[in-house]
Amino acid sequence: MKKKGILFIISAPSGSGKTTLCSGLVDSMGGLSRSISMTTRSPRVGERDGMDYIFIEKEEFLKRKKKNEFLEWAKVFNEYYGTPKRYVKHLVAKGQDVLLSIDVQGAMKIKRLGIKTVYIFILPPSMAKLRERLVGRSTDSKKAIAKRLKVAKKELSYLPRYDYVVVNKVLESAIENLRSIVIAERCRIGRK
Amino acid sequence: MKKKGILFIISAPSGSGKTTLCSGLVDSMGGLSRSISMTTRSPRVGERDGMDYIFIEKEEFLKRKKKNEFLEWAKVFNEYYGTPKRYVKHLVAKGQDVLLSIDVQGAMKIKRLGIKTVYIFILPPSMAKLRERLVGRSTDSKKAIAKRLKVAKKELSYLPRYDYVVVNKVLESAIENLRSIVIAERCRIGRK
Repeated sequence: MKKKGILFIISAPSGSGKTTLCSGLVDSMGGLSRSISMTTRSPRVGERDGMDYIFIEKEEFLKRKKKNEFLEWAKVFNEYYGTPKRYVKHLVAKGQDVLLSIDVQGAMKIKRLGIKTVYIFILPPSMAKLRERLVGRSTDSKKAIAKRLKVAKKELSYLPRYDYVVVNKVLESAIENLRSIVIAERCRIGRK
Repeated sequence: MKKKGILFIISAPSGSGKTTLCSGLVDSMGGLSRSISMTTRSPRVGERDGMDYIFIEKEEFLKRKKKNEFLEWAKVFNEYYGTPKRYVKHLVAKGQDVLLSIDVQGAMKIKRLGIKTVYIFILPPSMAKLRERLVGRSTDSKKAIAKRLKVAKKELSYLPRYDYVVVNKVLESAIENLRSIVIAERCRIGRK
């Protein structure tokens, strides 16, 4: 009986250093692979097809979308982005854990695959400070706090739907926290 | 608003190396303190009062037991052992995490304290091998398997009531798994 892999979904407000964190995490541990998205946009300098993205034609994307081949998809600036279901399922069935880095809105659209899914929220240091302010005393003006709260609220409102929160204050310790979450979830009893 | 600590309960069948693991865990990370039990038995050579155990008179123990001062207690070879509730509550309120090493039977008797409690089960390497056999193919005789199963079953029957399982095959990696569980639980959202 082979142990199935786990799908780790990582979301973060922009500017949280998510990309660096995810690279650091995947590079530092075995058995964890990145999920690769398909996109219709052109590759940027340095981007490799099949590594950073799978670059496909719009027609091809829409055909796959119609066939329900994506875990989730989004249209940004007239280009499509999607997470292929089959690749994630294949890795997980082999016992590989998969890391999927995706924004909060996208994460909520993930279709249930019947595999164990763990949701991790990254907070940037400035949000962390904000969070401290939210729960503690503050010397800021009421107006300044209200403005900060408004921006934070939108993102933070998704927090309760996640399993873990990692504050990216010091990169190394944030990566250690992510590693720990992956290792701990592998030890967890009662997984699907 | 101060973050409350977490109570980590570690149980293991005898011979699993639990004591070494717990020492390794507590020594390797901050913010985690051992819970110290009270006992009526005499100190063994090298045991320090207030460090390894709190040694008290039987009369004193029974008085405290009557006052409901123990999270759990047990009588072994006519001597009493108990986990003082107040000490655990005090540390957790201060934001300290507490490690309580206790046998499976004892763990199930832990009275709810209204604090977040995480249950970790340690499997000795031989149990791990057995576990592999339980789920996989085997070349052992049916009789040998039956006997192993009987011993294992009693302990393993408690497994589903725990949150995590750590196999103590290689000491260092078992300690890393325990560390990871503690760190991950600190990142977990929705704690009590």
